[in-house]
Amino acid sequence: MKFISISYFLLLATFLHAQVGVDSVMLKRIFDEELTQGQCHTNLRELCKGYGKRLTGSPGAAGAVEWSFEKMKSYGFDTAYKQEVMVPHWVRGKAEKASYKVGNTINPIQVGLCALGGSIGGSATGEVIEVKSFGELRALGKEKVKGKIVFFNRPMDDTKINTFEAYGGAVNQRGRGAIEAGYLGAIGVIVRSMSVGVNPYPHTGAMHYNDTVTKITSCAISTLDAENLSKDLKAYPNLIFSYTIDCKTLPDTLSHNVICEIKGSERPEEIIVIGGHLDAWDMAEGAHDDGSGVVQSMEVLRLFKQLGIRPKHTIRCVFFMNEENGLKGGLKYAEVAKAKKEKHIIALESDEGGFTPRGFSMSAHGDTLANFLNYKSLFHIYNMDDFREGGGGSDIGPLENQGCVMMSLTPDMQRYFDFHHAATDTFEGVNKRELEMGAAGMAGMIYLIDKYGL
Amino acid sequence: MKFISISYFLLLATFLHAQVGVDSVMLKRIFDEELTQGQCHTNLRELCKGYGKRLTGSPGAAGAVEWSFEKMKSYGFDTAYKQEVMVPHWVRGKAEKASYKVGNTINPIQVGLCALGGSIGGSATGEVIEVKSFGELRALGKEKVKGKIVFFNRPMDDTKINTFEAYGGAVNQRGRGAIEAGYLGAIGVIVRSMSVGVNPYPHTGAMHYNDTVTKITSCAISTLDAENLSKDLKAYPNLIFSYTIDCKTLPDTLSHNVICEIKGSERPEEIIVIGGHLDAWDMAEGAHDDGSGVVQSMEVLRLFKQLGIRPKHTIRCVFFMNEENGLKGGLKYAEVAKAKKEKHIIALESDEGGFTPRGFSMSAHGDTLANFLNYKSLFHIYNMDDFREGGGGSDIGPLENQGCVMMSLTPDMQRYFDFHHAATDTFEGVNKRELEMGAAGMAGMIYLIDKYGL
Repeated sequence: MKFISISYFLLLATFLHAQVGVDSVMLKRIFDEELTQGQCHTNLRELCKGYGKRLTGSPGAAGAVEWSFEKMKSYGFDTAYKQEVMVPHWVRGKAEKASYKVGNTINPIQVGLCALGGSIGGSATGEVIEVKSFGELRALGKEKVKGKIVFFNRPMDDTKINTFEAYGGAVNQRGRGAIEAGYLGAIGVIVRSMSVGVNPYPHTGAMHYNDTVTKITSCAISTLDAENLSKDLKAYPNLIFSYTIDCKTLPDTLSHNVICEIKGSERPEEIIVIGGHLDAWDMAEGAHDDGSGVVQSMEVLRLFKQLGIRPKHTIRCVFFMNEENGLKGGLKYAEVAKAKKEKHIIALESDEGGFTPRGFSMSAHGDTLANFLNYKSLFHIYNMDDFREGGGGSDIGPLENQGCVMMSLTPDMQRYFDFHHAATDTFEGVNKRELEMGAAGMAGMIYLIDKYGL
Repeated sequence: MKFISISYFLLLATFLHAQVGVDSVMLKRIFDEELTQGQCHTNLRELCKGYGKRLTGSPGAAGAVEWSFEKMKSYGFDTAYKQEVMVPHWVRGKAEKASYKVGNTINPIQVGLCALGGSIGGSATGEVIEVKSFGELRALGKEKVKGKIVFFNRPMDDTKINTFEAYGGAVNQRGRGAIEAGYLGAIGVIVRSMSVGVNPYPHTGAMHYNDTVTKITSCAISTLDAENLSKDLKAYPNLIFSYTIDCKTLPDTLSHNVICEIKGSERPEEIIVIGGHLDAWDMAEGAHDDGSGVVQSMEVLRLFKQLGIRPKHTIRCVFFMNEENGLKGGLKYAEVAKAKKEKHIIALESDEGGFTPRGFSMSAHGDTLANFLNYKSLFHIYNMDDFREGGGGSDIGPLENQGCVMMSLTPDMQRYFDFHHAATDTFEGVNKRELEMGAAGMAGMIYLIDKYGL
């Protein structure tokens, strides 16, 4: 019996060792294919240059949907289809200008400014109240705020190594600033852009109103202009700031998630989702946010097909619409999945930019987490073995309460907020190898999850 | 006794725990200072924009020496001085052109081309022999090579995740191509640039002759032009390629290493060196190679001074001259160190670009290596805990046989060969936060080594 046990364990050990060997060979095949024949960078160029400014409802978004659908069909996956979803339709308009004068100077100081997504259009001219927090604003009270423009100027904390944490620590000014300021009778809001350091680019992003407070216009200025305005306010506290934006919200409109898949050979009813979002802010081309994520996701399926990997589970790639200002695509996708009683076992989102991948994060526990962490060693030679608990993404989030495990690709995050929602987010800012490394890593991870389950 | 032992170990554990706490606090102070008040990015801009094309012997190099010396003095370190060193003086000249015609076309195809550093000037016009290796060339023999231009077209292996390994697998074509081709009677050499993927930028770099083979001109063309030329040679094997370069080597000239230091408070005679190289190829501004390394090195001393860290050992920062085409600065520095019987305990070089730092490598064994690896946990929250055996750098290499431990900063390496020795290596390619993260990490590591020894 003892003899049998030892033999058994030796056999098992040999088998496991051989499996690791097989898996590392397959991962190398995936990376080799991607780093020499990868198509995601070319696809990103087509998407960005052909369909920039693809905010929900725009011609860019509509064009991107068709481009995506045709591209998916061209790869000959088992399925490619569009999923209807009604989405918000906010348009920036043309005029965006701002200026102020200091002292007896003749020429006004011109300020680069952009409307925040969702803002009403209009103009505001008045004195400026600078604050760093809602608490500070509330303490000033209606008396001091009424009739003024509120300037939210709390920077992202550059000492945070995790730049997403720094973003999280500042972004409520953008999202809720108009509500807080409007409640106190302000006539407008300017927000310091969500960006690291000091640079001349205004960054847009979503803002919100509620039904109980009068809506006021809300805009962003660059971190550089915010620094300068703050200095000028110290010298000239009563300076008059003036701006105009002519954005507006049109009726909701029809758009689509775009979906393709390779059917599972053993468990086709169990679905592994990979995705990113197809829509992007209207300041540039949405290359890092999130053109990179969608082309990487589609590349996973291309790699499977090219390398003849026939998955056990159905691998589905979803280009979600409307992550930026409504999340309607993600919500619709989860709603349909629930109605169809689809079983999603795991969803992997890439929406943190096309930078060198550092690893993955996963919202799992127990054996599932242990299995995941076991894969670390396979990714070590690709320098992407930073595996952490966590995971998720806006678009896949609505699947979580259907029992779907959340996972995200975690690229290096030091440059992300140089590009995020700004005119700088163009194709040229995405490095080919870095993008490909992410796509290959995602394909490798999906290969392992499909093979061994969760 | 047992009681005492346990108490002792508890005390020791508490002490060690407290030390780790103290160290992590100090590392955070260093990173916070650098990420909010860092000066290395501004310094890099001054160096690159004021003194680009600073190849040894050039006005750019002479200007960079003076800029460095004045900058070091302005920081008020304990010492700042220049160390004389005779260096090679190769100049590119102005005319660099190349073209060839295919079939009956009227317009010649223009090829971007640059002389390799050290090449003689001249022209060559003739048929092209394309090879991938010296073995392939030798097998062709004198009969087939004589009177021809040899085209070395073995790419860097894009499947290698370590791009420096890929470089190492291709660079002998650049370094020794003219010797191998000249020996067989070739009239010139064109080398596929040392770069990843396919791009339109020629990359220069050092090449060598020896005394037994007739010298022939040697140039680089971009990877894109190399791909195109290779295709055209398949269709038109007898096409005539023509190029001119008018570079030349002038007599050796006087230049300098530039050095500053903070004297050690306890062991001033034991020296910790940090450095990079001040010279750079003449295609652009030498921002990643190696402007980043020198400004990061000087920043370590600035951080020590700014934060009031008084080191036990002498911390010396060296801007080495002539890494690119002779290594005379590194050799001179080691020669002087030996003559003065200086004791260098460790040298840390940053010469792999100003990208997000991933960790460090160190050429140590036994307890020294174990101590080094123990610091990993302190660097985890900075995402730079990829610590490996290895280490070193060209400039500090000559110190190794004086018992000096070698260490290098290891940044992410996926983008490096987009910039290396090409017109793309400008200040704009270096991200401020990524550069600062490297400087802070270096300062943190030097702080620990100085505090605990090796």
